[in-house]
Amino acid sequence: MIREIEGGITAPRGFRAAGVACGIKKQKPEHQTAPLDLALIVADAPASAAAVFTTNKAVAAPVTVSREHLIASGGVARVIVVNSGCANACTGAAGLAAAREMAATAAAALGCAPDQVLVSSTGVIGAPLDITKIKTGIAHAHRELGTSGSDAAMRAIMTTDPFPKSKAVSVETPAGTFSIGGIAKGSGMIEPRMATMLGFLTTDARIEPDVLQRALRRVSDETFNAITVDGECSTNDCAFLLASGASGVTITRDDDPALLEGLRAVAGHLAREIVRGGEGATKLVTVHVTGAATSADAWLAARTIANSPLVKTAINGGDPNWGRLIAAAGRSGAAFVLDSASVAVGPIQVFVAGVPHDERADQAAEVMQAKEIDVTIDLGTGGSHAATMWTCDFSAEYVRINAEYRT
Amino acid sequence: MIREIEGGITAPRGFRAAGVACGIKKQKPEHQTAPLDLALIVADAPASAAAVFTTNKAVAAPVTVSREHLIASGGVARVIVVNSGCANACTGAAGLAAAREMAATAAAALGCAPDQVLVSSTGVIGAPLDITKIKTGIAHAHRELGTSGSDAAMRAIMTTDPFPKSKAVSVETPAGTFSIGGIAKGSGMIEPRMATMLGFLTTDARIEPDVLQRALRRVSDETFNAITVDGECSTNDCAFLLASGASGVTITRDDDPALLEGLRAVAGHLAREIVRGGEGATKLVTVHVTGAATSADAWLAARTIANSPLVKTAINGGDPNWGRLIAAAGRSGAAFVLDSASVAVGPIQVFVAGVPHDERADQAAEVMQAKEIDVTIDLGTGGSHAATMWTCDFSAEYVRINAEYRT
Repeated sequence: MIREIEGGITAPRGFRAAGVACGIKKQKPEHQTAPLDLALIVADAPASAAAVFTTNKAVAAPVTVSREHLIASGGVARVIVVNSGCANACTGAAGLAAAREMAATAAAALGCAPDQVLVSSTGVIGAPLDITKIKTGIAHAHRELGTSGSDAAMRAIMTTDPFPKSKAVSVETPAGTFSIGGIAKGSGMIEPRMATMLGFLTTDARIEPDVLQRALRRVSDETFNAITVDGECSTNDCAFLLASGASGVTITRDDDPALLEGLRAVAGHLAREIVRGGEGATKLVTVHVTGAATSADAWLAARTIANSPLVKTAINGGDPNWGRLIAAAGRSGAAFVLDSASVAVGPIQVFVAGVPHDERADQAAEVMQAKEIDVTIDLGTGGSHAATMWTCDFSAEYVRINAEYRT
Repeated sequence: MIREIEGGITAPRGFRAAGVACGIKKQKPEHQTAPLDLALIVADAPASAAAVFTTNKAVAAPVTVSREHLIASGGVARVIVVNSGCANACTGAAGLAAAREMAATAAAALGCAPDQVLVSSTGVIGAPLDITKIKTGIAHAHRELGTSGSDAAMRAIMTTDPFPKSKAVSVETPAGTFSIGGIAKGSGMIEPRMATMLGFLTTDARIEPDVLQRALRRVSDETFNAITVDGECSTNDCAFLLASGASGVTITRDDDPALLEGLRAVAGHLAREIVRGGEGATKLVTVHVTGAATSADAWLAARTIANSPLVKTAINGGDPNWGRLIAAAGRSGAAFVLDSASVAVGPIQVFVAGVPHDERADQAAEVMQAKEIDVTIDLGTGGSHAATMWTCDFSAEYVRINAEYRT
């Protein structure tokens, strides 16, 4: 039994957080005060830790360092330290040294080994990280740590996300109740060099690191890895999950239904919020692919459709353009049988078993006026595999945001 | 020795062409007369024929019929008949029957076997093809056939391409001179359901069908298959090449340098013109990828960069944003070594062996003011493989064209 609760990443017991301004993000005219740009998330005692990282081969320095630390510590962490305003990506040896110093500074403040610190950065690519500001920020954030610090931490990881993203649930099990919290940032920057997704989750369930890692991987594939704004996998993407054990509830299997349901509720919400707040986005679109011959085919077709510029501009224009959905499915590489394929916009079947039903176009256009739209594409193979992805529409505003900026 | 000549597809000896109005394309207020929408390209005698088709699994009826005919005829054709205004795609059994009737009508007019006719369509997906109009149009076009008909045929295959695309060259060889001509249409429609690329090439060299097919495949991979406007492979894409033999020059090998050079000159020009006339395009961008570990990697990286919305919007904004180029290369799946990777905009090296040179950003921005821009990305693997693709920038106009249309 899942219940929504307040408190974000500090809802689970055993965690404190803080967000402070350290001067890396520039103060803009619209800011009343210096913008928050450094977050600390701290477990009171060593916590099981799991992470998923970008698959981009141009990995940012903090990704490299966090990956090393997770291996060295055997999946145990006390601290996550995050800055916004500078991605510390494509910064070479100096960037790696800065990421390591960021971790060492947090470790010294909290009294733990450096490899129990995970680091993360988001912002401009190629700019050097000002480690002096980071060190001052960590000292400041350490003093501010508290069990109601989730909101400040959430704001400190935002760039120009149009709204903050947070979620927490309590999960009742026969063995007791535990909770899961999360915060995330998505895409939408005033100076966009690269849309970056960061997600930070906590739980007070007791879970061994290897179980935690498998559960996070599993849920990420259905949530964070099932969204797209513009098909651009960044250099800095990561999601971290820490488990404090403070609830006294022990989870021993990565397929534990209560754990997965709780993680899906938190990560799924954050993932959809990232899409809803995507650059220039006006609509949240759920793409269901059914009738696929294999699971890989279902994901391939869903990913191709969710990234298709013609599909995304049609949705922007409120056009129930099944032809573009069919053409995207057809070019995806997935097995596809045109004469058995179907397309529905919400409940309206606009293309059924290879036959257009354009007499329903007005009804479908009506459905597309909503802020949240479901489209379902059956690949017509008779297979039973399916996949669901979330995407947004593609607006002139996206082009404006990403074209008008000059370095 | 290659020399540009006039005459398009009727420059090579042994070909006639015509373009007429048959009433499928609607006459718009800006049209003074009914728009041309049916083209005939006729070889005086059975010609060797080769073709490359869309890889989209949602293939349009004319693609299916042309593929069948090429096999049945053993690679011999007399006629290509093309209409614009209706793609005859996603039209089921009725669409297939219409495509066959289109071929049969042309065969009867020219006195050849139906399988010596290749058919092609471009326009709205899902609308039925009005075969009565097509039949009248074929009869009309048959009366208009002439050796200066290339221009009318070229205009009849356009939708709202901003300009027509034609090229012809003469190729001098020790054995004599032959010529190659071509016309093409690209993307940019007032009612875009799908950008469609059609290319039609002729030559008066004498070439056996299997040699011709291999040569066309080879050159297409470096020209028509090396361009992108928005990454959308349509349901109708095709390129046809007919060889009449009327020059008396015989080519026996698909790697004949004179043939390849001539085909590259014609197909490469048409391909780049299609990009330059892409929907909303303001710039023609050549993407060179070097230093790849394999040829497949070079193409993978080039294709990912050429389709990256963030790269294409940066180019639209005149921003020499090497971070987006590096991030696109990094996520492409190609082997990539960040510390050895480099990026140049025209001759300006903005990222060299992993090190940013943002002090050259102003110089690079200057280069990006041009209408034609080269970017070179070295993947840093030390490999010697390379690939070149052509793309355009991504403008708010692209979104407007594809979003504002309502079915």
